[in-house]
Amino acid sequence: MNQTKNSMQKIKAFRDDRNWRQFHNEKDLAISISLESSELLELFQWKTSEEVKASKIERIKEELADVLIYSYMLADNLDFDIDDIIEEKLVKNNIKYPVNKSKGSKKKYTDFN
Amino acid sequence: MNQTKNSMQKIKAFRDDRNWRQFHNEKDLAISISLESSELLELFQWKTSEEVKASKIERIKEELADVLIYSYMLADNLDFDIDDIIEEKLVKNNIKYPVNKSKGSKKKYTDFN
Amino acid sequence: MNQTKNSMQKIKAFRDDRNWRQFHNEKDLAISISLESSELLELFQWKTSEEVKASKIERIKEELADVLIYSYMLADNLDFDIDDIIEEKLVKNNIKYPVNKSKGSKKKYTDFN
Amino acid sequence: MNQTKNSMQKIKAFRDDRNWRQFHNEKDLAISISLESSELLELFQWKTSEEVKASKIERIKEELADVLIYSYMLADNLDFDIDDIIEEKLVKNNIKYPVNKSKGSKKKYTDFN
Repeated sequence: MNQTKNSMQKIKAFRDDRNWRQFHNEKDLAISISLESSELLELFQWKTSEEVKASKIERIKEELADVLIYSYMLADNLDFDIDDIIEEKLVKNNIKYPVNKSKGSKKKYTDFN
Repeated sequence: MNQTKNSMQKIKAFRDDRNWRQFHNEKDLAISISLESSELLELFQWKTSEEVKASKIERIKEELADVLIYSYMLADNLDFDIDDIIEEKLVKNNIKYPVNKSKGSKKKYTDFN
Repeated sequence: MNQTKNSMQKIKAFRDDRNWRQFHNEKDLAISISLESSELLELFQWKTSEEVKASKIERIKEELADVLIYSYMLADNLDFDIDDIIEEKLVKNNIKYPVNKSKGSKKKYTDFN
Repeated sequence: MNQTKNSMQKIKAFRDDRNWRQFHNEKDLAISISLESSELLELFQWKTSEEVKASKIERIKEELADVLIYSYMLADNLDFDIDDIIEEKLVKNNIKYPVNKSKGSKKKYTDFN
């Protein structure tokens, strides 16, 4: 079974059961993805990764899921296939960050010689 | 085949080929997810959803993919299964937003009677 | 001279010279403040505060100024006095975070006993 | 009296009374500015500017003040003068966005001919 499509079906059913598609224009969905990613980031405010992992793993799970759920909704609005857009972007990133220039380096591609 | 796990494998291979796991502490990954979601949102700045869909569909695809790729990396760091955390969160959202209270309504759950 | 009002005058003149007030609805200004704060945060991605201060102080200055400039524009749209809203919020924060409960502590006010 | 410096003094007193300067490294302050700007943006989620102005003006005031307060704290950490960095950035923006190319136009400077 295609698990990604299975998750997408569940997200669509959740949205359709509530008749929320009408509110979900793409600009507001992009705002929502940004807000959910801030709620995820908030868990790490004033803390180290280690402190957060030790005490807030369930909260990370929930906030990361919210980022994903809104991302899937935006993809659904625009008829994007989640796995396809990931694969296409990895191909582009491979060109931007060739292994020989980026291995073990934090440099941004704009700083490559 | 499990497509989600297939995408995850490709993302892990991309990261491992560059030996980047060492830099990817969870706090910085949460920052990255937030930054990528801002790049997505930036496409909509000063515009309507319709204007953006008409002219920037490829850019939306790329920025949304970046949000997903960093989200998968964080999930990988923490041994989360993408489909499981989505499903678990939908169950919680179902309780927070019961169909009879939320159908056709933009109200936040904290504003329900 | 009131320096805050002086800065506000310069920001208003910059905006009026370009006839940009017409585009600056408050929702898009709130988006802009969020985007500029992400550009500020991006300087710190994968780095420690010390690394960034040693190499990017001019960039921090610029991005922080952008956050402030859009914040002043939103305040101008809504006829807020910058110094007044800061003072009013500090009064509220004083109540939320009384010195005896918060001194030397990172606790969020929701976690006070 | 210099009102900006007056507000800065109040913010510093608030922070020093709680002995919070020790926690306020610049990376976490940049995170805080980003999180507060998201709380501001959240007020506009799923709504038009007009709807928000009609019902949430006090909340906008508070969240915008939080963005400003953290911005002032970061400026204080780095010995930036608020009015100076605004003025310097406006000079740069004037060069990036000359009046004759940008008047009445939403174009980004990278799209100028």
